[in-house]
Amino acid sequence: MIRTVQIATARPYEVRIGKGLLTHLGDSVSALGGGAVALVSDSNVWPLYGPCAKASLERAGFQVHCFAFPAGEASKSGKTYLELLNFLAERRLTRQDLIVALGGGVVGDLAGFAAATFLRGIRFVQVPTTLLAAVDSSVGGKTAIDLPAGKNLAGAFYQPSLVLCDVNALNTLPAETFRDGSAEVIKYSVLYDAALYRHLLERGLDFDRQAVIARCVELKRDVVSQDEFDRGARQMLNLGHTFGHAVEAQSQYTVSHGAAVAIGMGIAARASQCYGLCQATVRDEILAVLRRFGLPQTTGYPAQALWDSMLSDKKRAGGVIHLIVPRRIGECAVYPIPVEELLPFLKAGL
Amino acid sequence: MIRTVQIATARPYEVRIGKGLLTHLGDSVSALGGGAVALVSDSNVWPLYGPCAKASLERAGFQVHCFAFPAGEASKSGKTYLELLNFLAERRLTRQDLIVALGGGVVGDLAGFAAATFLRGIRFVQVPTTLLAAVDSSVGGKTAIDLPAGKNLAGAFYQPSLVLCDVNALNTLPAETFRDGSAEVIKYSVLYDAALYRHLLERGLDFDRQAVIARCVELKRDVVSQDEFDRGARQMLNLGHTFGHAVEAQSQYTVSHGAAVAIGMGIAARASQCYGLCQATVRDEILAVLRRFGLPQTTGYPAQALWDSMLSDKKRAGGVIHLIVPRRIGECAVYPIPVEELLPFLKAGL
Repeated sequence: MIRTVQIATARPYEVRIGKGLLTHLGDSVSALGGGAVALVSDSNVWPLYGPCAKASLERAGFQVHCFAFPAGEASKSGKTYLELLNFLAERRLTRQDLIVALGGGVVGDLAGFAAATFLRGIRFVQVPTTLLAAVDSSVGGKTAIDLPAGKNLAGAFYQPSLVLCDVNALNTLPAETFRDGSAEVIKYSVLYDAALYRHLLERGLDFDRQAVIARCVELKRDVVSQDEFDRGARQMLNLGHTFGHAVEAQSQYTVSHGAAVAIGMGIAARASQCYGLCQATVRDEILAVLRRFGLPQTTGYPAQALWDSMLSDKKRAGGVIHLIVPRRIGECAVYPIPVEELLPFLKAGL
Repeated sequence: MIRTVQIATARPYEVRIGKGLLTHLGDSVSALGGGAVALVSDSNVWPLYGPCAKASLERAGFQVHCFAFPAGEASKSGKTYLELLNFLAERRLTRQDLIVALGGGVVGDLAGFAAATFLRGIRFVQVPTTLLAAVDSSVGGKTAIDLPAGKNLAGAFYQPSLVLCDVNALNTLPAETFRDGSAEVIKYSVLYDAALYRHLLERGLDFDRQAVIARCVELKRDVVSQDEFDRGARQMLNLGHTFGHAVEAQSQYTVSHGAAVAIGMGIAARASQCYGLCQATVRDEILAVLRRFGLPQTTGYPAQALWDSMLSDKKRAGGVIHLIVPRRIGECAVYPIPVEELLPFLKAGL
């Protein structure tokens, strides 16, 4: 059975989660109209699902132009972005045509940013093939590329016209990549949903994929619909990320995003307990679920180095950083902290 | 006296037109808040107005980072765009900070696109220093860069927070550049305003700058507020442009934008008369005002070459091109024409 979540942003769209959706990709996209499709993917995903996706789109009558770039965060660059724009321009795509982003977060962010800006905006369909992309980057309309100075520093708020999450595609994910994505799933449970937390703690990596993805999408939907342009409620989704980004930066991005977010949640949990923002039991519950998933909770980088990295993060605003801290499982809070007081807070969390 | 035009797009803003506004730039920007400003300009405008603008911003308490690129359309590229993004990131601008675009259309389009996408959108102030930028590109929220395949192929719809048009800045414009910008002024008169047309025909290049700029901004405002995302009414503004872009492309952009638009209006006027869409007197009125301004009305490029160029223009949609044709002075119409019938129409206009 297919689960459908309606996303009521200014331009509403649907997220469909189910098994075998990729086989019917062409029909789903066909309902949106358009004559040509740029199918964007990477060198990991293309060999697995590209030909099937292309065939389905062609069966539905689309002219399909394929653009696959080398897999990895290094491709989420200005260089690949311009290459993709040039590809779209050379293929003479029009505003009636579409981009289909087939892959994980890098593919979705890059293809989404190209869709947002080519001809000042053409429609795009997200087909997330990783857990991370399914629960996080395919919902909410944040598209981006990295700059040498930091991750996601350029981009646009731009909603897809449709998101198709084929749960079967997750079967081919390397175990480490699946584990990595589950850090975001855990984040949603800590932020909003104690029942989801209990399911995750009980089942570990063997959680009910379709139900959990649908639940995470609903939770993210509720936040995004309150705050499409990331000025308020949406900052809650940064739980684990503000510290996590610093860990990623320190490691020169050799620590994966999910691992970094897990470490970030660990730091937030420990520091929050030290500062009396949550009980020791809450800290332990967060650490327990991370352990259950085999995710890291600590980092060897010194507080000073992480602090330096955080100051270049774009979420810094006028000398105050807005941290997201746990109160109890299912409830977090914004904790504004002056930059000068951040270092001791960080130390308490390491 | 300063004239102010309110622009009621989703994010409303003001266009102020007056003499000496540049001297008070800092105070005007200061009212928007923010701590740092990236002052973006080009190698023509920077020596004339850069130091004055910088000093005014600094007097108002801003930290000012200056970015000036080589003047000319060639800088409206993916390369300069990425350089500007990197500059903003390295200077650690935040979402609270602003970009000030000091210059003509290229500066405004490029800085506007960077503002639209850096950190997924920071505020920007337009300070147009050419007639073209004052009446056209600083209003309406179209930002863009060129791609090798064509002009303005990537960009965003993004409104400035404020537009300051210092009429004094037009005094240093080369005569050819001023004449060039007046093609857009003539366009507004043919589209919407017979009284403006009469003023232009009477005064030629010596028209009342402040009043005419304010009137053009009002006219554009009325169109843009009906159609912020360029799906309907706004296509009227393409009068002269669909043919003009083809002339520009054929000339490898050695023919200026204004001259190309003037030629485009000439083609539209002659072809429309041949096809019975307007009277011969209307055609002659259009040609007369172009002549009064010393603008070209004809091109030596063959119809077939122009037709080829037009097919790669982004305004093409499903085999039909929507031309804008004059009915009488102050009233134009959309004339949808199948691609196959465009060639004879073009021939009638040459």
